This record gives sequence, structure tokens and C-alpha cells, in this order.
Amino acid sequence: MTIHVYLAGQIHDDWRKELKAAADKKNLPVTFSGPMENHSRSDGIGEEIMGDQPGPVYRDDAASQLNNLRTRVWLEKADIVVALFGEEYRQWNTAMDAGAAIALDKPLILVRPEKLHHPLKEISQKAQVTVETIDQALEALAYLFADE
Amino acid sequence: MTIHVYLAGQIHDDWRKELKAAADKKNLPVTFSGPMENHSRSDGIGEEIMGDQPGPVYRDDAASQLNNLRTRVWLEKADIVVALFGEEYRQWNTAMDAGAAIALDKPLILVRPEKLHHPLKEISQKAQVTVETIDQALEALAYLFADE
Amino acid sequence: MTIHVYLAGQIHDDWRKELKAAADKKNLPVTFSGPMENHSRSDGIGEEIMGDQPGPVYRDDAASQLNNLRTRVWLEKADIVVALFGEEYRQWNTAMDAGAAIALDKPLILVRPEKLHHPLKEISQKAQVTVETIDQALEALAYLFADE
Amino acid sequence: MTIHVYLAGQIHDDWRKELKAAADKKNLPVTFSGPMENHSRSDGIGEEIMGDQPGPVYRDDAASQLNNLRTRVWLEKADIVVALFGEEYRQWNTAMDAGAAIALDKPLILVRPEKLHHPLKEISQKAQVTVETIDQALEALAYLFADE
Amino acid sequence: MTIHVYLAGQIHDDWRKELKAAADKKNLPVTFSGPMENHSRSDGIGEEIMGDQPGPVYRDDAASQLNNLRTRVWLEKADIVVALFGEEYRQWNTAMDAGAAIALDKPLILVRPEKLHHPLKEISQKAQVTVETIDQALEALAYLFADE
Amino acid sequence: MTIHVYLAGQIHDDWRKELKAAADKKNLPVTFSGPMENHSRSDGIGEEIMGDQPGPVYRDDAASQLNNLRTRVWLEKADIVVALFGEEYRQWNTAMDAGAAIALDKPLILVRPEKLHHPLKEISQKAQVTVETIDQALEALAYLFADE
Amino acid sequence: MTIHVYLAGQIHDDWRKELKAAADKKNLPVTFSGPMENHSRSDGIGEEIMGDQPGPVYRDDAASQLNNLRTRVWLEKADIVVALFGEEYRQWNTAMDAGAAIALDKPLILVRPEKLHHPLKEISQKAQVTVETIDQALEALAYLFADE
Amino acid sequence: MTIHVYLAGQIHDDWRKELKAAADKKNLPVTFSGPMENHSRSDGIGEEIMGDQPGPVYRDDAASQLNNLRTRVWLEKADIVVALFGEEYRQWNTAMDAGAAIALDKPLILVRPEKLHHPLKEISQKAQVTVETIDQALEALAYLFADE
Repeated sequence: MTIHVYLAGQIHDDWRKELKAAADKKNLPVTFSGPMENHSRSDGIGEEIMGDQPGPVYRDDAASQLNNLRTRVWLEKADIVVALFGEEYRQWNTAMDAGAAIALDKPLILVRPEKLHHPLKEISQKAQVTVETIDQALEALAYLFADE
Repeated sequence: MTIHVYLAGQIHDDWRKELKAAADKKNLPVTFSGPMENHSRSDGIGEEIMGDQPGPVYRDDAASQLNNLRTRVWLEKADIVVALFGEEYRQWNTAMDAGAAIALDKPLILVRPEKLHHPLKEISQKAQVTVETIDQALEALAYLFADE
Repeated sequence: MTIHVYLAGQIHDDWRKELKAAADKKNLPVTFSGPMENHSRSDGIGEEIMGDQPGPVYRDDAASQLNNLRTRVWLEKADIVVALFGEEYRQWNTAMDAGAAIALDKPLILVRPEKLHHPLKEISQKAQVTVETIDQALEALAYLFADE
Repeated sequence: MTIHVYLAGQIHDDWRKELKAAADKKNLPVTFSGPMENHSRSDGIGEEIMGDQPGPVYRDDAASQLNNLRTRVWLEKADIVVALFGEEYRQWNTAMDAGAAIALDKPLILVRPEKLHHPLKEISQKAQVTVETIDQALEALAYLFADE
Repeated sequence: MTIHVYLAGQIHDDWRKELKAAADKKNLPVTFSGPMENHSRSDGIGEEIMGDQPGPVYRDDAASQLNNLRTRVWLEKADIVVALFGEEYRQWNTAMDAGAAIALDKPLILVRPEKLHHPLKEISQKAQVTVETIDQALEALAYLFADE
Repeated sequence: MTIHVYLAGQIHDDWRKELKAAADKKNLPVTFSGPMENHSRSDGIGEEIMGDQPGPVYRDDAASQLNNLRTRVWLEKADIVVALFGEEYRQWNTAMDAGAAIALDKPLILVRPEKLHHPLKEISQKAQVTVETIDQALEALAYLFADE
Repeated sequence: MTIHVYLAGQIHDDWRKELKAAADKKNLPVTFSGPMENHSRSDGIGEEIMGDQPGPVYRDDAASQLNNLRTRVWLEKADIVVALFGEEYRQWNTAMDAGAAIALDKPLILVRPEKLHHPLKEISQKAQVTVETIDQALEALAYLFADE
Repeated sequence: MTIHVYLAGQIHDDWRKELKAAADKKNLPVTFSGPMENHSRSDGIGEEIMGDQPGPVYRDDAASQLNNLRTRVWLEKADIVVALFGEEYRQWNTAMDAGAAIALDKPLILVRPEKLHHPLKEISQKAQVTVETIDQALEALAYLFADE
């Protein structure tokens, strides 16, 4: 039986690729999805598909239609949501996805450095599991399939 | 992971076949469903199965039982609903299907010529994505599977 | 025990006021809600609250945000939805509201002239009750409270 | 018919009191709830009720249990959620509450200065209404009850 | 706190009135609803509101639209459903209402003479409580409010 | 895409086998399930598994636990429910299953001889399709997969 | 706005009365419900209403029908569930109610002496709040209504 | 069509392995899941993944995060839940899982020695099937697939 995991979080480095590669090495029956990780394509996808918009707010709104289409479908199909917070960026999408996962009763694995515990304390308390590293998140996924 | 897409909209030309052929060319892992596109069979399916009815209202009601059986099952299985509005026909079924998709929390891709924006403005505002052409709808679907 | 009824349909004449007055006369324990019936305010409410927009599509989108806020809240609170279709206007919002009511498992009373039966046959088949006049819709509501 | 509104957002100034006072002036049939606005009590409520904890992470976790108890109950009872974002603070709870509201199909009114549009574009696109000031949010609420 | 009870079952004698009178005597905070108990009005309500129909099947269908409108609304509002089966009549509506109550997770009190146990064994096993008399059903309701 | 169909109705003749054989001939991508059709095993399954019971009511209750386990799981997995009523037997389980299907928003195909229309009129009005023969039910299923 | 709280737990002492009296003193807008606290009536309610049963298992089953009727209705109406575990008794009903509350997304306040933490660790981790005394549970309820 | 079964209950002997082996022998199309059966790993999994904790309550809480992650995902995927109670251990997790299964409308098979009937009477009454041995539970599963 396969588990689908949605990877919420910032799209500025390769953390998703590292997690997927490590899961592959362990032969876990897990598939992954997440937002578009090419940042400039993500910001420009509205105009790419719908054409020019009358200003930056409208450009953003067009892009968000497509980004939200993608993330709604994949998050809806997820059995587990991993949300990674780092020290940079506002990461409001990550927090919104975490809130959605909790409200949809999907277990949330929160990954954050301990120094961010205070601003994330309410999300952490609602998460199913709170850890500090991507490796720990992967070990949590592996525990689902462990026989002993 | 495969996505199932329900294609709501009028049944008077071949727009569904074009969309499916274009999706095939892109090798998207997407399956499609929709209403019966043979218009006269759709109107006559009630009498075809249930026999003669005592008048046009009853003939219509019998046909609708079968058409709604088909569309309820497929729309319920959809991950995404595409609703196409054109300048002809009343298309109340399309609007009803759009309302059902939104109420069932299934993302809606609305396709309509810009000149129809005003009468469709409330549907558009509830849709996840609003575009003007079938090609744009297909690009939106392709974006779900894009790696970069 | 009070019943709340949402009145979907066009906003170009006084059919809602007539229905409410007739319900009052019968002392039915029913409350009513519906969209903003002042058509020009409904079209302009976006700019009224949010200020000028960069064109008619954006003006419409702003208005729809507010109109949909209103109708989502009231339709969600409804025990029954009445949807009135007439021979004029496209009435796509009415069909969308009908689809939402059905998907949310709220009983739908469809009011339409018999000559519109064919284009409305699928909505009619999903409706709980189909009638031709507002008076008949009111009698249907009164039947909920009849002792004998 | 009364509407209950949950007020998500930071707790460092009196924006909730201002909104409530303005709603009172308009005699809107609206009740409001939200998180504890006394910041130090909110941070210390865990130790206040449960006694000393073995360190700041545990102190935060105890407080979050109580804060989340309060906000879960009130958000669950809300017909509408207002989420206010400002330029200071990380405001991850606000984004999490916004995500929960959307997932629970409760209409969200997003209030944010236009300069924050870019980082909030995906939340804005999922919100029912996006405005820039508390007064505009109040006008949106008033529109639910407007007769004309 | 008041409990609403829907009374499913045949409409050929006064069992509902007796139950309501007995509940009144005990001052239970319970309200009751059920189908139209005037049998000929129930059978004719379709033609009464919608006018003549082209035959008995159509007459029945019109009546059922109205009867189902009434029972859907009241059963949906119920906290508990009582279903009474007797030795006469086919009572398929009673069994359908029992199935709906169970599927909607509303506790069902089944009332039937013991000699009907065999044909009702599957319904009985899904019911919350199975008794033989209306008085026993009332005692079960009273037990909800008993302090000791 | 495969459809699963639950076959509710009496278990005294081979109607399910006939329907399955006819579906096989048409190569429909449909799977079927239903209650245990061996009547004496169905009545005795409680004592077969749990041992002797202290009387016929208890024997029935034990059997019903197992019969309901089987039918709950399969009905829950169904995309469509077919309910067959004949002129013999009380068939209260069939009506209960029909009520459950409707409440769970699964389309119901009602099969009954026209002479039973009156006592089944409310179930018929809630059914998605009403027909008179098993062949017609099969044609209705086939219509889901028809291309033209 | 009033909150309804269901009090799960053993019925062998007066902890519910103490909690209610303390809530009254604080004038909290909270109502309470729970199982029948008269232990011998709770065990005998089946035979009291349904008459003699053929042995202790059947006596227990009859009583449970009534006890579960009562607790299902009240737990369903609860905004918050309090579950109290002590050092005596098996208290499996308390754990079952806790599991139901969590599955129904109702916030759970777990009250248990610290020495029971180990066997209750999984329930505690799913609870919204874990405390050691009834007074602490009451303070948690009071915090919902605190202005500062 | 395959059925997934979640096996709730104590983890101190090999009852799950025996049940799986017996199901394999019968070639039942059933898959199984359950909690981690290595008791010391289950108790220590929190510190294994998250590192040292400041005391036994915190060690337990860390372990519970992981154990609940595992059991939530598998119980959510189950079509049927089997809950085994024995005479040793408090088994509160088993009762919590039983409560969750019932609240999520998943059929529960309760396995317990008859002498435990009294303290388990309310769980038994809510269970779909109550038996005394693992073999009987397996026969109940086999009955789902029996043709005659």
C-alpha cells in the first residue's frame, strides 16, 4: 500500500530533491508532490498561460490561480503533509498549507529549526510530529512501514 | 499518479475530442469523462430504455434520469472539472455542474470568451482558474505535472 | 422550529418581495435571504468598497467577491433553496446556485414556466420539487407545516 | 439571523476593538471572537494553568494547548473568518487560520496593505474577498444585510 | 437543551398524537415532526399544488415530490429518529427512512412487535435501540434527560 | 475506469447472476457485490461463527451482525446501488439499503414492476433512475460508458 | 454564545457535580451533559425499559442500547469533550469516547494524574489539552471567554 | 476488490501474525496494518528519531507523536477495524481506536473473552460484530467474499 506525501514549504533550494532521493534509497513505497519549484516560472505562470496583465497585482493573481490549482489537487490526494519552515522568507503559503492539512485531518509533519519554535508553537502543537531536520521527517515516514 | 477530469459544457461540437487528442500528444497522465455527446441520443435515451412516455415533459424527465446518472458518477470521480461556456445555447447544465463542482470542493477551470465575462463573473470568481481557450485549459492541466 | 429559505434567481423584478409578503400572510415560520436585488449596486459594489479598478473585467471581479461573500453565507444557512428561472436573461448564477444546493444536499424547489422545461430538464430531475409559479412554491413551503 | 465572525491576526494593537465598535455603531447583527489579545497572558497561559515547565519549548507547548483550544472552538463556530496581515511579525498563526478557514469552506476576508500582495498572493486568490483596510472589511460584512 | 425527534412510520392511526401527548405529560424538552398524517391529502398533494397529471404514476410522482420535501427537511433536523413498524402495510418508506437515519449517523429507535423480528433483524441490529411499544420508546427518550 | 455496483434486493432467485452474466457479455468495466444469496446460510451465519444462541431473536441478531458487516463494506464501496423490488416478501432490507444509498449520495437505480409504483413512490422519486426490468438497469449502466 | 461540554469518565463519584458547581460560580456560559451517573440504574436500564433478559450478557446489551443512545446524542452536540481518567476501573468507555471526540474533530481535554501518563500517552498526544485536575480543566474552559 | 483491515489491540504477543497467516492460507484478498509491535521500539521511537528528552513524560510524548502518525494513516485507510481486548493491560489505545473507528463509520469487529463482556458492553453494542476468538474474526472477514 502506497502513501502519498505533499511537501509544503519554500521553493528556494533543493530540499525536496534530497528528501526524494533519500526515500528512494530506502525503497519506501511513498510518492511525493509539491508546488512548482522553479521560482520565476511560478511567479510568471499566469502571464505565460493567460497573457499580459494590467499590473503586478493582476500578474500575481493570475499566477496564483495556476499555483493554487496545482497545490489543491496534490494536497487533496496526500495522506501526509510535510511542512518545512526555515529562517528566511515569510513562508505564508507553508503556514496556509499546514492549516489546510490540519483542517482536512491529514497528519502534518512540521520541520523547523528549534530557534523558530516560539513563532511556530501553535502550528507545532497541532502538528502530528515536530522535528528539526529533513532526515528526521524521512525516518518518521519510514516508521510507518517498519515491521519491528 | 493519474488525474481524472470531468468536461462539463455543451455537446454540439467536438471540443472534448480536441482536448483529449491534445492531452494525448503531451502524454499527460489524465483521463477524461463527460456527458453523452450525441445530442439526439442524449435527448432520446429515456424512451430508448424506458419506452414511450405520455408527452414531451415526461420524455425529457426520463432522458434526464439517465443523463444525470451518467454525469453524477463521473463528476463525483473527478479531481478537476473543466466547464466550457460559448456564446450559443443556454448551457444551464454547464452552470449547474460548475456549481456542484465548487460545492464539492473540486477545482473548476472555467473556459469562456472574454465577452461573456459579465454574465459569468460570479462563476469566474469562484473558479480556481479562468481562461479563454481550450488550449489554455490544457496548459493549466499540464502545469500540475511540470517539474520545472 | 423555523426554516430558512434561500431565494436564487434573477434580480430584475419584485418576485422575492411578493413571496415574502405571501408567506407573512400565512404566518409561516420561514425566514428568507438572497442576493442583493438592487442591480446597479450589485454590479458596482466592488468599486464602492475597494475603489476604482483597471477595467470592466476587474470591476466585475471585485463586485463578484462581495456578491459571492453574501450568497455563500446565506445559501450555507438555508434549509431549502428556491431557484426561479424566467424567459429572459442568461441566469447562470441561478443554475450555479441550483447545482450548489443539490451538491450540498439541500432540497431545491425549481420554479419555471413549462416552456422552459427542455433546457432545464436535468436541473428539474435533480430538484426536489418542480413547479411553474411562485404561489406553488409557497404552497410547497406551507405543506411542511400543515397538520392535516 | 446573526452571523459569527472570527478575527484572525496579530494581537499587538487594538484593531479588533475598533472593528467591534464600528460594527456596533452600524447595529450589525454580528458577534465576534478571536485569540487572547493580552500577549503576555497568551504566552504564559500554559504555566498559569499547568504549572512550571522544564524549558521554553515546553512552556510554549503548554501555552499552545490552551490557545489552540480557544481558537479551534471559536473558529469552528464562525460563519466568516477575517484575517489581518500587517508589515510586522511573522504572523504564521494568521496564515494557518486562513488555511483552516478555506479548507473548512468558511468564506475568508483577507485584509492586508497592497504592498504585501506578492507574498500573500496565493492566500488572496483563495480568499473570498481581499481588501486593504478594516473599514473595508466592515463594509463587506454590512453588505450581507443590506436591503438595497 | 432541546432534542428534535422525527417519527417515521405508517400514517393510518394516531400513534404520533399519543406519543406527543405522553411526552407533554412528562414535560420532556422534545419537539417532534413527521410525514403528513392525512392519508388522502398525502396521496393527492401533487395534484393539489401542481394540477392534474396524465395518470396514476404521474400523480404519485407529483405527490412524492412534496412528501419528500417535507420529510427530508424534518429528518435532516432530527437528533433521533423513531421508526414504527406494524403488521399491516408494506411500510417501505419507514424502512427507507430508517436506512437514511443510520447512514446520516442519527440514532434510530426501532419499534416493532416481537413477531416481526425476523424480517426486521438487519434493521434492528443497526438501530440504536429496539423496543416493542411506543411507551418504551418514550421511556428511552426520557432517559436522556434523567438525572439519576 | 471501473465502476462498482451494489445489488440490493431479495435473495430468493438468480437475478444477480443473470445481471452479471449480461454485463460480462457487454464487456462493461463494472464489478458487482451484494448480500449472501444462500438464504439458509444467511439466516444461520451467526450460529455458524458464534455458536448456539439462546433463542430465535438472538440467533437472528447474531446473523445480522455478520450480514450487516458484509453489506456495509460493499455498499460503502459502491458507485451505484441497484435496488430490486418484487411482489413477494417484505424486502425491508432492500428499502433500508435504498435509504442508505440516497443518504450517502450514491445514485440509486430502482427496479420494480409498475404495479408496485404506488407503495414505492417516495423511493422512486428519490431514485436517480426508475425502471421495470433488470435488462433496463443494465442498459442504464451501459449508458455510462457509451461514446455515442 | 454558549458552549456545550460533554463530560466523559467514570460514574463512581461526584466529580461532575463539583465541576458544574464551580462553573456556576464563575458564571461561565457553559452547559454540561454526560452519561447516567446512578451506576445501578445505568446497569439495569435495559431491563427497566425492555423487561427481563435471558442472562447477564443480554441484560448488559439491553442496558448498553439505552446508555449509548444517551451518550451519542449528547456527545454529538458537544463543542468540547472532557475525559477524566482515574487510577481505578478499566474506563474503556472513557477511552472510546475520547477516540470518538478526536475522530469527530471535537477538542478533547484530558484529565489524569501524572502517574497515568504512560498508558495514556497516545490519547494525551491527540488531546487538545492535558491536565491533572478538574480545576485545571475548568480554568481551560474559562480561558475561552477571557477578555484579557 | 481488496479490503484493508486495521488491527487494533495490545502488542505483547503474536496474535497479528497468526491472523495474517490464517488469512493467507484462505487466500483472502485482504491487507492488514497496525501499530508497531516491537514494544521497546514503540516506547523509544521518540528519542530514537528526535533525540533525548527532559524526562519520562516528554519521552512518552515524543514516542506518541510517531506512534499516532503511523496509526492515524493506517486506520484512515481501513475498510474494517478489528479490536482485540484481553484480560491483561489497560488497553486504552485499543478502546480509543475502537471509538475512532465507530465515529468514522468504519465497521468494528470486537474480539474479547466473554468474561470481559460487562466492562466492554457499550463498545460491544456499537461494534458491528462481537466475537470471542481471532478465528471467529477471520471467519467474519471470509464471509464478505463467500459466494454461497
